[in-house]
Formats: sequence, structure tokens, C-alpha cells
Amino acid sequence: MERYDIAIIGTGPAGLEAAVTAKIRNKNILLLGNKSLSNKIEKAHTIKNYLGLPEISGEDLQNSFKKHLEQMEIEITEDKVNAVYSMGNYFAIQGHGGIYEATAVILACGLSTVKEFSGELENLGRGVSYCATCDGMLYKGKNVVVIGYTKEDEKEADYLAEIVNKVIYLPMYQEETDHDARIEVVRDQNPTGIEKQDNRCILQTDSGKIEADGIFILRESVAPSQLVPGLAIEKNHVIVDREQRTNIAGLFACGDITGAPYQYIKAAGEGNVAALSAVNYLSDKTKQQ
Amino acid sequence: MERYDIAIIGTGPAGLEAAVTAKIRNKNILLLGNKSLSNKIEKAHTIKNYLGLPEISGEDLQNSFKKHLEQMEIEITEDKVNAVYSMGNYFAIQGHGGIYEATAVILACGLSTVKEFSGELENLGRGVSYCATCDGMLYKGKNVVVIGYTKEDEKEADYLAEIVNKVIYLPMYQEETDHDARIEVVRDQNPTGIEKQDNRCILQTDSGKIEADGIFILRESVAPSQLVPGLAIEKNHVIVDREQRTNIAGLFACGDITGAPYQYIKAAGEGNVAALSAVNYLSDKTKQQ
Ligand SMILES: Cc1cc2nc3c(=O)[nH]c(=O)nc-3n(C[C@H](O)[C@H](O)[C@H](O)COP(=O)(O)OP(=O)(O)OC[C@H]3O[C@@H](n4cnc5c(N)ncnc54)[C@H](O)[C@@H]3O)c2cc1C
Ligand SMILES: Cc1cc2nc3c(=O)[nH]c(=O)nc-3n(C[C@H](O)[C@H](O)[C@H](O)COP(=O)(O)OP(=O)(O)OC[C@H]3O[C@@H](n4cnc5c(N)ncnc54)[C@H](O)[C@@H]3O)c2cc1C
Repeated sequence: MERYDIAIIGTGPAGLEAAVTAKIRNKNILLLGNKSLSNKIEKAHTIKNYLGLPEISGEDLQNSFKKHLEQMEIEITEDKVNAVYSMGNYFAIQGHGGIYEATAVILACGLSTVKEFSGELENLGRGVSYCATCDGMLYKGKNVVVIGYTKEDEKEADYLAEIVNKVIYLPMYQEETDHDARIEVVRDQNPTGIEKQDNRCILQTDSGKIEADGIFILRESVAPSQLVPGLAIEKNHVIVDREQRTNIAGLFACGDITGAPYQYIKAAGEGNVAALSAVNYLSDKTKQQ
Repeated sequence: MERYDIAIIGTGPAGLEAAVTAKIRNKNILLLGNKSLSNKIEKAHTIKNYLGLPEISGEDLQNSFKKHLEQMEIEITEDKVNAVYSMGNYFAIQGHGGIYEATAVILACGLSTVKEFSGELENLGRGVSYCATCDGMLYKGKNVVVIGYTKEDEKEADYLAEIVNKVIYLPMYQEETDHDARIEVVRDQNPTGIEKQDNRCILQTDSGKIEADGIFILRESVAPSQLVPGLAIEKNHVIVDREQRTNIAGLFACGDITGAPYQYIKAAGEGNVAALSAVNYLSDKTKQQ
């Protein structure tokens, strides 16, 4: 497996500037996120405070950023990261699309607005999962509930339908679902909590209960505390120092994920610093060998 | 005298982004620096790592920044700041062009490369001065040495020639000087140290000694330790926390002055954070009243 120098998770201004800076420093980078960059860029109306690009629309800012990536030949790998594991000498990054390896990792996943359901965290890995490709096989021949937040998530439900006995799908969005016939779609039930009874998971909703062997919650983002085991967090933000270092050696964070103010240029500035700190980390590591 | 909400010292990316952000937050700002912005912008060849402005020349970056200021109707006051004094409830900012007052101050003066002469700091205020308009009157009828670093400084020497007995001017640049007839220009002597003997100052140079009552050193920047009495410094950098706060309440710092990495977007990002912290400081202050 290819071992990248630096994996960057997130394609908002923080992750993009980190990628640009690391590429200039000749690092072999993996940039994970979305080809449309960040919906916080796309959806902004007029931005007045990104120095050098006065009175710019979100769409134009997105285009300026895309042009920057093109000019520097930086590719985006479209994937959602489920977990980052520190393996001592490197990191294993578990995405929905596969496992990646990198010597250093930069978290640029944006602000986490995840509000877990009651009972969710206690049962994570004991019936609750965030990733079908990662954990699907554990439920072969069994019944699962999938909670999807975007139409994209239907693909993961389809994948599960191929291996499990039965999939009940709860779409948390308005669009029509477009599913495999084997999937039972349940609308208008909002999950409120998860309970474990013997080996069964009970999903409580505002209008009843659904029983299953496993519950897949496919949110757009993963709370930082769940993303990296052992990561030091304060009020849902990753704790970093002025070099954007987290408490885990080789792991850096930048942008909204590190806390207020939530601003584009603050995120980009921190991305720059995080990348240079990662570059220093790599060179110190090489010298030690 | 007008009391500004926030005075911003420096017109590099850090100071400019601070001004843009503070203006958006409806603060009454004073932006001190140069209309040509920063020679670190002007002189750069090609900049590849300012996200959103790929492969941009220093001149084009300067123009983008200028356009941003124009669009937001932000004016630059051309002045060099000599000292910032904390007056308890506000700051007094001593510039070569006058005294200004502000409730909060943001230092964005860039990297200080000042190397003081031996004996300089010990004799500051005891014969050594950084500002003719500030201290000239103390030397009425006496003899002074002026060390100038740019042609601009000749104006301060001219001003001194009007009040003191004799001005000896040492230009630390190549261009021809263009002086008042009363001024004696001494070329090709590089200052090495300053000594005090009784009430006289002795300037040692690499080829001799010059005696005077006062010595004016007109460097382009003032070391942060000299700029603000009591400011906490480490290795010539201003110590700041993640909110860009210094050890002095109401005083913030951003950009190269806070340490490596020395990068445009890091400076701009910190300028944004410093301005928002200053805005918070002002609103906390109002609430306390
Ligand atoms: C409507 C709106 C208007 C705004 N206007 C302004 C403004 O005028 N000025 C201003 O300065 N700021 C503004 N902001 C704030 C600004 O959008 C954010 O501060 C900025 O986008 C933060 O950048 P970031 O890179 O940290 O995160 P984000 O832009 O949020 O990007 C995070 C990225 O990480 C990806 N990601 C998240 N989790 C994962 C995962 N597990 N795996 C893979 N990828 C993942 C996301 O898909 C996304 O690409 C606005 C925000 C909104 C919503
Ligand atoms: C040739 C060159 C090329 C560079 N290339 C790059 C690059 O490609 N990418 C990159 O990211 N970085 C680059 N840099 C670094 C970048 O220029 C700096 O990191 C950036 O300019 C720092 O911004 P700043 O706002 O902190 O300070 P500066 O840009 O240094 O601005 C400081 C401002 O403060 C003013 N000032 C100082 N003292 C006083 C005073 N006492 N009173 C009033 N005003 C004062 C100055 O006149 C100036 O306007 C380059 C630097 C140089 C010299």
C-alpha cells in the first residue's frame, strides 16, 4: 500500500491551503474530501473579509480555489473518513472507500455539529457503526437499520443490502429515495435514541421503535472525538497549540475544527501553519532514523 | 483628541486583514503604515501559496489588497510608530507624525530584524532616540548625530537642523543625500556601538568616533521590546495565545511579529483573529461600564 507523507482530511479553505503548502514543499500528499470542496464555501452569499478577493460570491471563491488546485495539479480523492488510527510510526485512515496510510495527518474537517443520539456512543462498535464498507461484513445475514443524511448514502445502503438479510432505511432528507428493491424505506421517523437489549439494538424514534442487529448512522461528519481515538478535545474542538499540533505526534488540525472564530482566512492561515509543521515533523522523523 | 476603537500598526497582510475585519464589525479604526503597503509584498516575485490567488506576482497581490481597501473605504495613515504606551483605559501611540489614542491596539509590524548597536538600549532615553519629532526639542542648541536608513529619514534630519546647533548625518543607504546646507553628511562610517561619557554620547564606527549630545537612530522598524514597554517577548517575537492576545490587556499582535512561519496567509489569518479578539475586548469593556 502506498504510504503518503501527509494525508489531509477536508477540502474547505483549511485543507486546501494545507495541500497547496505541502505540495510546494514537495510532499506526497493525499487530499480527502469532496470535489465540490465545502458546502460552506459554495453556499456563502457575499464574502467581504477574504483579503485580496473583495466582495466575492461563494461560487467565485470556490472557483478561485479550484483554479489554484488545478494550477498546482492537486487532486481530490472523494471519500469520507470514518476513523484515523495512530499506528506508532504512521497513521491508518479508514475511509468509506478504503484504508489509506500516511506518516502525518492534518485534520481539516470543519466544525462538527454532530449531536449524537442518546445511547449512540456507548454502543459504538457494539451494534452502532458509522461506515458500511468498514463494518458491513459483521452483519452478514442479519437485519440492519441505516440512517442516511444525503442521497449519496443510499449507495452504502445498497451495498449492505447485498450482504445482510434486511435493510431498513431512514432518509433524513426530503428528496425521493432511489433504492434497491430489497430495502425498506421508512419516512417521517426521527431517531431519538439507541438502546441495547441482549444482542439486539433498539432504535427509538419520535413515533416508535425499530429493532435490528446493527444501526448504521451515515452523518456527513464524524465528531472529532470519534474520528481519532485519544484525541484531546475541548467543547467539541480539537485542542491545538500555535503550531497546530494536537496531543498526538504527527497529527495536526486546522480551521473550524480547532474552534472560533469560524472564518475562511483564519482556516486558510491555520492550514498553512499545519502543513509547515507537518513538513517539519517529517524531516525530524527522517533525521532520527 | 479622537479616540479610535482600534489602532492597527502595520500595512502588511496581517494589518490589512485586521483592518478589513474590524471595519466589517463597524469599529472606528486607525490603520498606520505605508500607502505602498509592505515592501515584503511589493518585492516578492511569484507567490504560489496564497489560496485563491494562484501564481500571483507581488505587484498583483499588492493591487488586490489595495483594491480591497478601496472597496471598503479603508484609509491608511502614513506614519511610523515609535512607541505604544498603555494608559490603563486606552493606549497612547507615539508616531513620528503625532500622538494617537485608541482603546485597543493591534501590532502587525512584521518581522523585526533590528540588531541594536552595543550600548544602544542602555542609553535609550539618555541620549539615544528613535524619533526626531518626539525628542528633538530636548536637544535645542546642541549637537546631534542622525543615522538614517532610507531617504525619507532626511526629512527628520532637516527638522532637527532647525532646532539643534549641528546635525551630523550618516546615511546607511547608497542614494545621494539631498540635504539642508546646515547638515554635515558623513559617508562610509558604519556605527558599531554607543558609549556615554559624562553627558556626551560617543558613537563608535568602524573607522573612528563621533561625539554628540544625542544620537537619533531612524531604523525602518523598532524592535517589539522597544515599541511597547512591558511587552512579553521571546527571541524577538511577541508572545501571543491562540486568540492573538499579548500579555497586555487590549493589545494584540499578528503576522511575522509573532514568529514563524513567515507567510502571507498565516499573517492574514492571524490578522482576522486579532481583530475579532479586539472587537470582543471592546464589547467586554463596554459591558463592564
Ligand atoms: C452560509 C455561510 C456563510 C459564511 N460566510 C463567511 C464569511 O463571509 N466570511 C468568513 O470568513 N467565513 C464565513 N463563513 C464561515 C466559513 O465558511 C468557515 O469558517 C470555513 O469554511 C471553515 O473552513 P474549514 O476548512 O475549517 O472547514 P469547512 O469549510 O467546513 O470544510 C470542511 C471540509 O471537510 C470535509 N469533511 C468533513 N468531515 C469529513 C470526513 N470525515 N472525511 C472527509 N472529509 C470530511 C467537508 O466535506 C469539507 O470539505 C460562512 C459560513 C456559512 C455556512
Ligand atoms: C522577497 C520575499 C518573498 C516572499 N515570498 C513569500 C511567498 O511566496 N509566500 C509567503 O507566504 N510568504 C512570502 N514571504 C513572506 C511574507 O512577505 C511575510 O510573511 C508577510 O509579508 C508578513 O506579513 P506581516 O503583515 O506580518 O508583515 P509585513 O508584510 O512585513 O508588513 C509589516 C508592515 O508594518 C509596517 N511597520 C513596521 N514597523 C512599523 C512601525 N513602527 N510603525 C508603522 N508601521 C510599521 C511596515 O512598513 C509594513 O507595512 C516573502 C518575503 C519576502 C521578503
